[in-house]
Amino acid sequence: MTEKIQLTPSTHTAPPAKFSHGVKKGNILQVAGQVGFLPAEEGKAPTPAGPTLREQTLQTFANVKAILEEGGATWDDVMMMRVYLTDVDHFAEMNEIYNAYFEEQGLKAPASARTTVYVGLPKGLLIEIDALAVLG
Amino acid sequence: MTEKIQLTPSTHTAPPAKFSHGVKKGNILQVAGQVGFLPAEEGKAPTPAGPTLREQTLQTFANVKAILEEGGATWDDVMMMRVYLTDVDHFAEMNEIYNAYFEEQGLKAPASARTTVYVGLPKGLLIEIDALAVLG
Amino acid sequence: MTEKIQLTPSTHTAPPAKFSHGVKKGNILQVAGQVGFLPAEEGKAPTPAGPTLREQTLQTFANVKAILEEGGATWDDVMMMRVYLTDVDHFAEMNEIYNAYFEEQGLKAPASARTTVYVGLPKGLLIEIDALAVLG
Repeated sequence: MTEKIQLTPSTHTAPPAKFSHGVKKGNILQVAGQVGFLPAEEGKAPTPAGPTLREQTLQTFANVKAILEEGGATWDDVMMMRVYLTDVDHFAEMNEIYNAYFEEQGLKAPASARTTVYVGLPKGLLIEIDALAVLG
Repeated sequence: MTEKIQLTPSTHTAPPAKFSHGVKKGNILQVAGQVGFLPAEEGKAPTPAGPTLREQTLQTFANVKAILEEGGATWDDVMMMRVYLTDVDHFAEMNEIYNAYFEEQGLKAPASARTTVYVGLPKGLLIEIDALAVLG
Repeated sequence: MTEKIQLTPSTHTAPPAKFSHGVKKGNILQVAGQVGFLPAEEGKAPTPAGPTLREQTLQTFANVKAILEEGGATWDDVMMMRVYLTDVDHFAEMNEIYNAYFEEQGLKAPASARTTVYVGLPKGLLIEIDALAVLG
């Protein structure tokens, strides 16, 4: 029996429902949809970084990365990222931010696959990202 | 060669195209997007539970669960659930239903990760859910 | 340490950002969101097949398949396909194309699971598909 482990970085606000920010079982690690919420502050409602797409995107990356690290993984282990944007006009800017960020991260393995689609998100949120990683 | 097994609960209406409600290969089990269709009735078109979000959501959970069980899995094996809603205003209510449902299910392992986004669905459908499970 | 391998068919246009068209690690193969771009031509911007849904869908299937084959996989290894359409009215036609295509492919294993949702896509694109495969 392989144990299923909950991944909850200390920086993260509590999920709005009974789900985990991340789970790991064997060599599979799944990161839940992350948004650009700033690190949790006691007694304060979740607040997104902002107001720009850049600030929200970088905070979202930081939130995904914290979960990967909590599970002993790195960006190099990520197989798939799903990027949800609210506006097709944000695609080019998100790609610039994306490229610069992963350039800085110094990946050693090939970049993850990715799907980007345009959906509705709760008011104030411009981007959501989840990730599937395979470790080892 | 690991066999890929089709999971088709007897309660399920036939998929509207050449895809499987669920498949399992080795320790990976994938549940296709489920909606709130009531158990199949001979000669009757697929009909969603309803008309409330609660009824559709609970039927959708039942449909996902039937596929998991067909593959020898339980909610505890689920790593990721993708919840597709049609209306941001349904988020709070869906979370209440979600929490109560999983409370009742008596999970022994940490809750699954989850992503919720707002998309279009065919007329009459308020929610769609798919799930990835890792067994063993 | 299992190697993560980038899958880049020679027919494919360069991704618009630092992501891979496909990656494989151990027995897991992930295909990034593919659209109906025609085979890459030196010095020419990516151009979708078209203008019909049929042409774009068949080209998208070809693009997914090329990545699977680059990783030594076939449609039989696919566990999950995510189909993103822009218009609910395209569902029936897409299913016809889908069924005919997979009939022709002569699958030996059960068909993949599938989720179809309706989202926004960049101008001119009617469909996007990604896929998760488990080999072996």
